[in-house]
Amino acid sequence: MPGKMLKIGVMAPGSPIDPKVADQVKALAQRLYPDRIAEIRFHPQCFLSSGHFAGDDAARRDAFLEIANDPDIDALWFGRGGYGACRMAEAAIAGLTAAARDKTYLGYSDAGSLLAGLYKAGFTGLAHGPMPADIAREGGAAAVGRALSYLVERAPEALEPSLSAGAPAVAFNIMILSQLLGTPLEPDLGGHVLMLEEVSEYMYRIDRSLFHITSNPGIRRVAGIRLGRCSAIPPNEPDFGQDEEQVMRHWCQASGIRFLGRADIGHDAGNKVVPFGPPATA
Amino acid sequence: MPGKMLKIGVMAPGSPIDPKVADQVKALAQRLYPDRIAEIRFHPQCFLSSGHFAGDDAARRDAFLEIANDPDIDALWFGRGGYGACRMAEAAIAGLTAAARDKTYLGYSDAGSLLAGLYKAGFTGLAHGPMPADIAREGGAAAVGRALSYLVERAPEALEPSLSAGAPAVAFNIMILSQLLGTPLEPDLGGHVLMLEEVSEYMYRIDRSLFHITSNPGIRRVAGIRLGRCSAIPPNEPDFGQDEEQVMRHWCQASGIRFLGRADIGHDAGNKVVPFGPPATA
Repeated sequence: MPGKMLKIGVMAPGSPIDPKVADQVKALAQRLYPDRIAEIRFHPQCFLSSGHFAGDDAARRDAFLEIANDPDIDALWFGRGGYGACRMAEAAIAGLTAAARDKTYLGYSDAGSLLAGLYKAGFTGLAHGPMPADIAREGGAAAVGRALSYLVERAPEALEPSLSAGAPAVAFNIMILSQLLGTPLEPDLGGHVLMLEEVSEYMYRIDRSLFHITSNPGIRRVAGIRLGRCSAIPPNEPDFGQDEEQVMRHWCQASGIRFLGRADIGHDAGNKVVPFGPPATA
Repeated sequence: MPGKMLKIGVMAPGSPIDPKVADQVKALAQRLYPDRIAEIRFHPQCFLSSGHFAGDDAARRDAFLEIANDPDIDALWFGRGGYGACRMAEAAIAGLTAAARDKTYLGYSDAGSLLAGLYKAGFTGLAHGPMPADIAREGGAAAVGRALSYLVERAPEALEPSLSAGAPAVAFNIMILSQLLGTPLEPDLGGHVLMLEEVSEYMYRIDRSLFHITSNPGIRRVAGIRLGRCSAIPPNEPDFGQDEEQVMRHWCQASGIRFLGRADIGHDAGNKVVPFGPPATA
């Protein structure tokens, strides 16, 4: 199938990327889509280091704007999570121009702060899904290949399987969503299927953040919640007594939010793509 | 100085208490205030265990209500933090009667969820300060003695020293406050000096929660923020590059909130008492 040659720009809104990741991702893209991807450009900012961050707030904001506002680039692919997107998201979004709206934005975890703010600003090309740094996971090439299949050809098999024509969807990491509620980054999620996933958090913290999320009046207007995978949960002392699905069901019941079952997302190689908003028509 | 013999009731809104703590605290009170404290009653709920919690949500709610609604008891002293107060706070506060308003409530950490909801409900006898479980800390007898001196005689030297006649104050743990913003427990803190402390959180999480807190429109109406101690911060990989005061100053500057300096509170034996609201007149 002939098609447009895609140009993809990568920046790191939080923590820096290992240069090996860039080489591996470019090699995989060349193998999978030699005739469909013109370039995956890792912005030099990806490899900067400033304390915890991939460059200071201004450097991360400027790299984001350089890619997002470039009319020649088709997709902005967040390179890695970690932490830091919330520190520059508001300033970054304030600097966007018209060219930024005609573009796909793909990432998850910490990058959810930017996806949230972009969704609030009315952007339509947003998706929660694998990032370049996932290539370092066990089986990570499948995750990165899935992201590429979404970016290049909107492959249906890349999509989270519960997505339906009925309702708009979004997906977030639990902590990231919790920490942006009430801030200028919070989008209106009324009527949405909200998919939530977590990694490396104690069960009591998952419970506490779900209290926070499900007690929020805006969140109580969602169509329902689907629970993605909660992985690498450190052992609770004593045992928490409930697993993540019991905890989620508890808070859905307490808040009157519908629990819709599980979602095929998480911090792992199986992480499927969730486009934000109403499902695309075929 | 003769005075009323005080009756103090203790319950555990989150995690359970070691029975040894009760014995040690009662012995200390007997030594310090033999003529001023009639009884420190540890509710049997303090020693229950239900997974993570000191009894299930209903048991913790009921113990809270039994003490709070008892006109014969002068003070409800939260026994320990941990986690769990937010799970029962709304139901607990809904069950309070008139007798509950004429009472002192003292605690901190996880108990902040209840203090917040009680403050929202117009209670005037609330204070952030040491709890019985602090007796197990190094130097903990001083912390518990300070709490008793506040409960028994409102000792001025028990109070956080920056408290002034000028402005009402409140104090919270950073994570606890973050996780109750936007929920039915959130009080109006407009015009207040907000004191914040933290323990055992990575610096990047402190940074993220301060983004959340200082971006909240209600919090932006405080008179200013004072930073208590942030202790037992796990090492960040790589080094975060900023300490807690730099992080707090960053977010105060970004949000337009006044940074007022440090507060003498924290998860330690030096933790001073912060009565909620306007300072008491002498």
